[in-house]
Amino acid sequence: MMKTKTLSGILFLMLGSTLLANGEPTAADAMFTVNNTWMLVSAFLVFIMHLGFATLESGLTQAKNTVNILFKNVSIIAIGILTYTLCGFNLMYPGDFNGYFGFSGFGISAPAGVAGLIEYANGAYTYFTDFIFQAMFAATAATIVSGAVAERIKLSSFLIFSTIYVAFVYPIVGSWTWGAGWLADKNFHDFAGSTLVHSVGGWAALIGAYTLGPRLGKYGKNGNIKPILGHNMPLAAIGVFLLWFGWYGFNGGSVLSADPGGVSLVFVTTTLAAAAGVIGAMVTSWYISKKPDLSMILNGSLAGLVGITAGADVISPMNSGIVGFIAGIIVVLSVIQLDKLKIDDPVGAISVHLVCGIWGTLAVGIFSSEYNLGIQALGVLAYGIFCLISALAIFQAVKAFMGLRVSEEEEILGLDIGEHDMESYAGFQIFTVE
Amino acid sequence: MMKTKTLSGILFLMLGSTLLANGEPTAADAMFTVNNTWMLVSAFLVFIMHLGFATLESGLTQAKNTVNILFKNVSIIAIGILTYTLCGFNLMYPGDFNGYFGFSGFGISAPAGVAGLIEYANGAYTYFTDFIFQAMFAATAATIVSGAVAERIKLSSFLIFSTIYVAFVYPIVGSWTWGAGWLADKNFHDFAGSTLVHSVGGWAALIGAYTLGPRLGKYGKNGNIKPILGHNMPLAAIGVFLLWFGWYGFNGGSVLSADPGGVSLVFVTTTLAAAAGVIGAMVTSWYISKKPDLSMILNGSLAGLVGITAGADVISPMNSGIVGFIAGIIVVLSVIQLDKLKIDDPVGAISVHLVCGIWGTLAVGIFSSEYNLGIQALGVLAYGIFCLISALAIFQAVKAFMGLRVSEEEEILGLDIGEHDMESYAGFQIFTVE
Amino acid sequence: MMKTKTLSGILFLMLGSTLLANGEPTAADAMFTVNNTWMLVSAFLVFIMHLGFATLESGLTQAKNTVNILFKNVSIIAIGILTYTLCGFNLMYPGDFNGYFGFSGFGISAPAGVAGLIEYANGAYTYFTDFIFQAMFAATAATIVSGAVAERIKLSSFLIFSTIYVAFVYPIVGSWTWGAGWLADKNFHDFAGSTLVHSVGGWAALIGAYTLGPRLGKYGKNGNIKPILGHNMPLAAIGVFLLWFGWYGFNGGSVLSADPGGVSLVFVTTTLAAAAGVIGAMVTSWYISKKPDLSMILNGSLAGLVGITAGADVISPMNSGIVGFIAGIIVVLSVIQLDKLKIDDPVGAISVHLVCGIWGTLAVGIFSSEYNLGIQALGVLAYGIFCLISALAIFQAVKAFMGLRVSEEEEILGLDIGEHDMESYAGFQIFTVE
Repeated sequence: MMKTKTLSGILFLMLGSTLLANGEPTAADAMFTVNNTWMLVSAFLVFIMHLGFATLESGLTQAKNTVNILFKNVSIIAIGILTYTLCGFNLMYPGDFNGYFGFSGFGISAPAGVAGLIEYANGAYTYFTDFIFQAMFAATAATIVSGAVAERIKLSSFLIFSTIYVAFVYPIVGSWTWGAGWLADKNFHDFAGSTLVHSVGGWAALIGAYTLGPRLGKYGKNGNIKPILGHNMPLAAIGVFLLWFGWYGFNGGSVLSADPGGVSLVFVTTTLAAAAGVIGAMVTSWYISKKPDLSMILNGSLAGLVGITAGADVISPMNSGIVGFIAGIIVVLSVIQLDKLKIDDPVGAISVHLVCGIWGTLAVGIFSSEYNLGIQALGVLAYGIFCLISALAIFQAVKAFMGLRVSEEEEILGLDIGEHDMESYAGFQIFTVE
Repeated sequence: MMKTKTLSGILFLMLGSTLLANGEPTAADAMFTVNNTWMLVSAFLVFIMHLGFATLESGLTQAKNTVNILFKNVSIIAIGILTYTLCGFNLMYPGDFNGYFGFSGFGISAPAGVAGLIEYANGAYTYFTDFIFQAMFAATAATIVSGAVAERIKLSSFLIFSTIYVAFVYPIVGSWTWGAGWLADKNFHDFAGSTLVHSVGGWAALIGAYTLGPRLGKYGKNGNIKPILGHNMPLAAIGVFLLWFGWYGFNGGSVLSADPGGVSLVFVTTTLAAAAGVIGAMVTSWYISKKPDLSMILNGSLAGLVGITAGADVISPMNSGIVGFIAGIIVVLSVIQLDKLKIDDPVGAISVHLVCGIWGTLAVGIFSSEYNLGIQALGVLAYGIFCLISALAIFQAVKAFMGLRVSEEEEILGLDIGEHDMESYAGFQIFTVE
Repeated sequence: MMKTKTLSGILFLMLGSTLLANGEPTAADAMFTVNNTWMLVSAFLVFIMHLGFATLESGLTQAKNTVNILFKNVSIIAIGILTYTLCGFNLMYPGDFNGYFGFSGFGISAPAGVAGLIEYANGAYTYFTDFIFQAMFAATAATIVSGAVAERIKLSSFLIFSTIYVAFVYPIVGSWTWGAGWLADKNFHDFAGSTLVHSVGGWAALIGAYTLGPRLGKYGKNGNIKPILGHNMPLAAIGVFLLWFGWYGFNGGSVLSADPGGVSLVFVTTTLAAAAGVIGAMVTSWYISKKPDLSMILNGSLAGLVGITAGADVISPMNSGIVGFIAGIIVVLSVIQLDKLKIDDPVGAISVHLVCGIWGTLAVGIFSSEYNLGIQALGVLAYGIFCLISALAIFQAVKAFMGLRVSEEEEILGLDIGEHDMESYAGFQIFTVE
C-alpha cells in the first residue's frame, strides 16, 4: 500500500478535472497544470501583500492607533474578497459590453463540466484560479486609502467607504482596460496595475486625506511642519520586504501564464526597479536632508515597484532601473510637496501609489515603442476623473450621514482606546511624542 | 560555456531521477514534475505556519513570557520533524494493517532506484516529497496545545508531553483515516485535517488547560473574569496572516497533486471561509460587546480556516462562505463559554482548533451529499475519546513524575526570567498590567 | 468573451518565448516551463531571506541601533542586486576563462531571439531566470558581515565596504567553483554555498569584527564578559523562521531544475539538518549554562542549515541529521570561544556562517564517497586566504580614508540618533541596559 493520504475520489468526480485519472496526460495537460500552478502561487503572494500593508502602515504611525490599523487591514481583505465574489468580479469582467459599464450577474459560477473548467482561459488556468488571483487584487485599492486617512478616520465610516469603493469603483474602472473595455480598445497599457490598482487607490487616498484634514498638531502656524513619528521601524521594514516579496506574484502573475520568457523578464524588471528606487530615494533624501532617512528608502523601493508595474512586461531591464530610480526621486519630492500643501498622509501612500502610479503609466509610453504616450496620459486622466468624483461623492455622503472624523479627544487619546477599548502593547510604558 | 552553476552530476547519479538527462522528457515526466513541485511548495507553506503560531501565541500573551513561548515553538518544530522521521511517518502510514495500529519500522527509507522513487505515489510525487509534506504537518498538533497551556506550564514538562503526543498519538490516530485505516473504510472524510490535525491538538489543549488550571488572578470570586491582555497586537496579526498564507499549502497541498481544478477550488473555498469567518466574528463580537474587537476577528479568520479544512475539496464556494461565517460566530461564543467554565485558554486555541475543527468535520456531512453526517460524527467521537484519554494519561504521568506547573513566584515574575533567565525586550520599560 | 485580463501580445512578440502561442506545446516545453517556474519560486524565497537577516540582526542587538541596522539591510539588497547586474554576474560566470579571473562585460544581455532565451540553460530555465536567481544570492555575503560589525561601524564606511565586497570579491571567488573555474576542475563540491556564500561572508565578518574591536563595555578587565542583550526576541525568531523558509529556495533552487528526486531530497536533508541543529544547540547550551537559551537554539537551526548547504544534494537524510546536530554543537562552542578571544560578534554571525560553513564544506568530504576531504579542505583554505586578504585590504583602505568606527559618544547614544537622527520606537520608554 502506498504511503500517502488516500486520494479523495470525490474531488475528481465533482470537478471532472481528471487530468491524471484519464489515462496518460498529454503535453498540453502538463502545460496547463504548470500555468495554473504558477497563477495560484501568484495568488498567495498577492495575499501576503496585505500583511505587508498592515505592518507598514502600523509601523509608520503612532502606537496608540495600532489596533485600529490592524482591524482595518484584516477587515478590508475580508470585505474585498467577499464583495468581489458577490459582484466585483462580474463588474470587472462582464464579457461583451459597451466598454464603460457591464455586469454579468451576482456571485461566481464555474463553467459546467470538465471542459468548461479547463478550457476556460485558453488552457492557461481554471475559472477558480482566475477568480482567486483577481480577488486578491481587489482589496489592495482600499488598503492604500487606509494609510492616508490613518489616525483620524472613524472606523465605521472607513469600512463603509471601503466596501463601496472596492465593490463598485475598483471593478468598474478595471473593466475599461482589463475587462476589454474602451481603454483596451485604444491600446492603453497597464500591465499589472500602476493605474488600475495603485492610482485608483491613490486618488481615493488623496480625497480622503484632503477631506479629513491633517492630524491635530501636524501643521503649525507659519508653515511649521511637525513630524509625527512612526512607532515601530522594524514593523515598517517587515511591511516593505513583504510587499516587495508579494510583488513577484502581483507582477509575475500578471503574465497570466508561467511563460518562461515572460515571467522571468518580469522578475528582472520588477527587481531592478525596486532596487533602483531604493538608491534614487537614498540619494535624493540624503542630499536634501543631509541624513540617511530610513522611511524614505523604504518608500523608495515601493515607489520603484509601483513605477514598474504598468510596464514590467515591455520595458527592458536597464530601462526598468531608470524607471525605478526616477520613481525613487519622485517619491521623496512628492512627500515634501504634499506636506507643503498641508495634505497629511501619515505613511506616504499618495506619493507612492498615486504619484508613482502615474509616473509608471506614462513611463510605458516613454520606454516602449509599442505604446503611445498620449494614450497613456488619456488613461491616467480618465481614471483620475472618475476616481476623484467617485471618491469625493462617497466620502461626502458618508460624512453627511455618519461623520468621517473621530472627536478631538479620541484623536488625542488614540483610536485604540477610543474605537476599540483595547491597547496594542499592554504593559509597555508608552508616552505621546511631543 | 553556459552561464550557470555547473550542474551536479552526482545528484542525478545517486538518485537516478534523471528525467531531464535521459533524452527527451515525456508528458508524464512533465506532469510528475509539476505535481511534485506543487507538493514541495505546499510543504514550505505549511512550514511557515509555525512562525504564524509562534507570533500569534506570543502576541496574545504577556511580555514576560515571550522568550518561553518562542522557545517552545522553535523546539516543537524540531522535535516534531525528528520524531516523525524516527517513527511517526511509519506509524501513520504503516501500509497494510489492521486499521487501528500499525508500524512499518524506524526511520525513513526511500524505495531503491529511480523507479521506486518516481513511481512511488502514482506519478504524483516522490517518497521524499511525501515524507516532508507530512512531516511539516506533524508538529502542528503539539503547537496548538502550546497556546492553551501558555504562561504557566513548566518548559521541560511541556517538551516531554509534546514529544510523546506528536511521536505517538498524532500518527496513530492519523493512520485511522489518512493511513487507510478503519475510518477511511467507513468513508469518513477529513480532507486536510479539521479533526486529524486541529481537533487532535485541540483535545490535548483542552485537557492541558483544564489540568493546569487557570492563570493566577484570571478568575476572581463571584464569577469575575479578569482579562489578561496580550502584549503585542502586531505580532498577533502577523501570526494570523502567516497562518492564512500557509493554509494555501495546508489545504492546497492536501489535493496531493497540482490538479488544476482541485487546487483552484480549494484555494477558493479556503479563502471564502477565512473571509467569512472574519465577518462572522466581527458581527457577533460587535453585537455582544458593543465594540469592534481585534482579537475576535483574528480568531474569526482562523475559525473559518479550521472550519473549511475538512471539506475544502467537496464544499461549494458559496457554502464555504457559510461554513466560515458560522465558524466565526462559533469561535466568539466558545471563547465566552470557556471563560464561564473557568477553562483558561490564553489564545483561544481550544475554541479555534477543537470547537471549529468539530464544526468543520460535521459540516462535510451537512454540505456534501457524498458523505454521511453520522459517520462524520462517529469520527469526531472516536478521535475525541482516544485523544482525551491519551492526553489525560500523558499529562497525569508527566505531572506525577516532574510536575506540570511553575511555582507561583515564577508565574508572577514571568517564565522568561524564571525558566530562561532572559528578557524578551531588554531595555523596554514594561510593567505588569493589573 | 473570456473573463480575464486581456493577454498582452507585446510580451510574447518581444520575447518570442511563445511556447503557448505556437500551436501545441511539446512535453519538452512543459518540462522547461516547470523547471523555470521552480527556479523563480526559489528566487523569491531567497529574496525573503534578506528580511530574515534584517529582523534577526535587529532583534539580537540594542533598540538604539535598530534604524541603522534596517537601513543597512535594505541598502545592501539594493546595492547587491545593482552591482551584480552591472558586473558581478559577468565576473562570476565569465564563460571560458583561466579559472581564476574572468570578465565577460558590463551589464546583462539576454541571448537574442526565442532560441537563445529558451535553449540558454539546457532547457532548464531562461537567461533572465538564471540572472535573477544568482542576483538574489549576491547580497547575502555582505549581509552576513552586517551582523558582526553591528552597533559600532559607520554607515557610510559599511556601505562602501559592502559595495566593493559584493561587486568584486564575491563573484570572483564564486567563479572558481560555480563559474567552472579551477576548483570545479579539482572536483571541489559546494552545492549551494556553505563556502561560496556563507564562509565568504563569514571571513569578512571576522576581519570586520576584529578590525573594529569590541563594543564599549563588552569585555571588562579580568576577562569579564558582559552580555549586551538583544532588544526584541520575537523579531529574532521571525528572522530565523524566515531564513529557514527561504533556505528551501536557497538549497532547493540550487538543484537548478525542478527535478523531483533532487529537489525533494534537498528539502529533506535541509529540514533534518535544521531540526537537528536546534537539538544540538539546545543540548549543548543547556548542559553548559544550565538553562534553555533561546538565542542558542535560534542560532542552532541556522548552524544546521549552513552546515548542510554544501552537501544537501549528496548527503543522505540520516547523515544530514548528524551534520546538523554537530553544527548545533559547534555553533555554541564557537560563540563561547570567540568571546574568550574578545572578538565581539553581536549576533553570532561568524560562528554560524564561517565556522559552520567550514564544517559543512568538510562534511561533504566525510559523508559522501564521491568527494575528497583533502580537496574540500583545499577549497576552504583557498577561499579563506583570498577573502581574508581582500577583506583586510578593503577594511584598512576604508579605515584610512574615512574611518570605520563611530565616535564613543555616538556609540553610547546609539547609531539611530547619531547617524540617522531618528528613533526606531518613538513613544516607547527605553533605557540603556547596564
